[in-house]
Order: sequence, then structure tokens, then C-alpha cells
Amino acid sequence: MAEKRARERLLSAALDLFTEHGVTGTSLQMIADRLGVTKAAVYHQFPAKEEIVLAVIGPPLAELAPIAEVARLRRTPAARRKAALTGIIDLVVRNRRIAAALTFDPMVNQLVRRHPAIGVIEQLQDLLTGPDPDDTTRVAVSLVSGGLMIAGSDPRLAALDDETLRDHLLATARRALR
Amino acid sequence: MAEKRARERLLSAALDLFTEHGVTGTSLQMIADRLGVTKAAVYHQFPAKEEIVLAVIGPPLAELAPIAEVARLRRTPAARRKAALTGIIDLVVRNRRIAAALTFDPMVNQLVRRHPAIGVIEQLQDLLTGPDPDDTTRVAVSLVSGGLMIAGSDPRLAALDDETLRDHLLATARRALR
Repeated sequence: MAEKRARERLLSAALDLFTEHGVTGTSLQMIADRLGVTKAAVYHQFPAKEEIVLAVIGPPLAELAPIAEVARLRRTPAARRKAALTGIIDLVVRNRRIAAALTFDPMVNQLVRRHPAIGVIEQLQDLLTGPDPDDTTRVAVSLVSGGLMIAGSDPRLAALDDETLRDHLLATARRALR
Repeated sequence: MAEKRARERLLSAALDLFTEHGVTGTSLQMIADRLGVTKAAVYHQFPAKEEIVLAVIGPPLAELAPIAEVARLRRTPAARRKAALTGIIDLVVRNRRIAAALTFDPMVNQLVRRHPAIGVIEQLQDLLTGPDPDDTTRVAVSLVSGGLMIAGSDPRLAALDDETLRDHLLATARRALR
């Protein structure tokens, strides 16, 4: 229990530092200093910064598979798209702090590309475009899926509560995708 | 003239390397190796990597001011938004290679935040939201302006010609913004 709390404190401090300095600009020493412990104590829990990043992005990435599963069970392409979109938006909004710190970080992108969840990310992309997408649809899905991550982590929208942000993101995305 | 060509060759090689390795992962030595010259020769033109990045992003950033000026001359908020949107999309599409290599890079973001063009970027954001924006509008503008940069540099859309990409981005953005 104490160990679990220590791990959570470490991940929370790391996320603060990633937000302030980027992943590349954050060292294990900085995380130790922030927690008031030795670098050896951090190293004992996470021998490399990569493993801290993986521990932060792991839980939200693990939620992608059930979102895709639920969406796939819907009958029509339109219903599958709506379910995928709703699930992704809900996930982004609930993980705004992680999205703000880690989206588009080059190191994070590399880790995601090698992560088992990358297959699910591609499936979700296909659920959003639907079968045989034309250029219009492909451009709209690219704009919307990228834009969701940005709006979800936009500091100018930080004052909006989760429900308001979720509702507006969903409405905007659905208009963009027609 | 030879000096101008040498400068362009250097910037083009640097942009290739930024695309492959990210800005942080690219060194002056790597740029020299790619060009088949000494590091001293690169250093003679650009004493720091930052200056290479600034030389790459300077020309597109300089185009933002006339876009904002043209948009401000329109009579209604809707017309100002449309003019700003059209100008930004055209700029992103014409600079797809730069957008793909440099958007969301932490070092580039820092340089942009200290760049004189940052004031114009904020003016363009205001032209997109219009006066007294409600939450719906603020979320939609955040999603669209972020999504434009992503779709503009999406490798899956690289096969679309500029005109097709521009038309679809504009149509998607206008639907999203209503």
C-alpha cells in the first residue's frame, strides 16, 4: 500500500515535470529532487525515464481496446463511428493532464508506435473513417482526430469542466465529420 | 548566388533530417555529413541549430501578418473568420513539408513563442473565434486550428495534391465552425 502510494506520487511528480520541461527536458534527478528523495530511490522503482512514460500512458492506452470492441458491435458504419468518437473523446477529456504533457512529444510518439495498443489505434482510425473512405472523409478524420488531442489539452480550455468540454468536442467533431 | 544556393541546400538537408530524427535528434554534424561538407562549413553559415530552425520557419511565419491584415479588412465577423481560415489553410498546405517536420516540436514551440509573429498568431486566433466567443466556439476553434496543422502534415494524406487537400480542409473546418 505504501509502495503503491509512493509509485503514484512519483508518477504525478514526473507528469508535472513533463508538463513544465517536456519529456526530453526532465531527468530522473529532477524527479528525485521534486520528491525530496535520492536519485537511487527513483531508479529503484523505474530504472529508465522510458518506463515512467510507459507507466503514465499505459492505463489510458489500455482503455482503447474496449472502446474499439464496443464500437465494432454496432450495426452500421455511422453507429460505429459515433461509438468510437464518443469513447475517444471521453478518454481524452478524462486524461487531459496526460494529453497536455505527452501528446506530440517525439519520445512518447516512438513509445506509442512500439506499444501493443498501436494496433487498436489503427482499428479506431478505421472505425472513424468507415469502409472505403473518400478523400473528404479521410481529411475530416485526420483533422478531427488530431484536433481532439489538441483541444483536449489546450490550456485556454482548461477552465471548462469535463462534461462541458466533452459535449462541445463531440458536437464539433460530429459536424466536421458530417 | 552560389552562397544563396548553398544556404538553400543546407536548409533543405536540415529539414530532411528534422523529419527523420526530430529537431532534438539532429546535430550540426549530421547536417554536415548529409551535405558532404565539414561541420565548420555549416557552423560558418549557422552558428547554432536554433538559427537553422528560425531560417526554416521564418518565411511561413512572415506570411501570417498579411493574412491577418486582409482578414481584418472584411466587414463582418463571419467574413473575417472565413478570410483568416482560408489564408491559414493555404499557408499550411503550401508548407506541408515544414509543418510535418516542425509542428509540435518542443524546441520549435519555444522559438515560436519568442518570435515576433506570436502576436499575429494570437490575432488570427481572435479572428477565428470572433468577438465574445461562447464555449462552443472556443472549443471548435481549438479543435480546428490544431487539427489543421495535423491534417496538413499527415503522412496518410501526402498523396493528395495541394488543391484537393486545401479544398477538403476548408470544407471540414467550415462545417466544424458552423
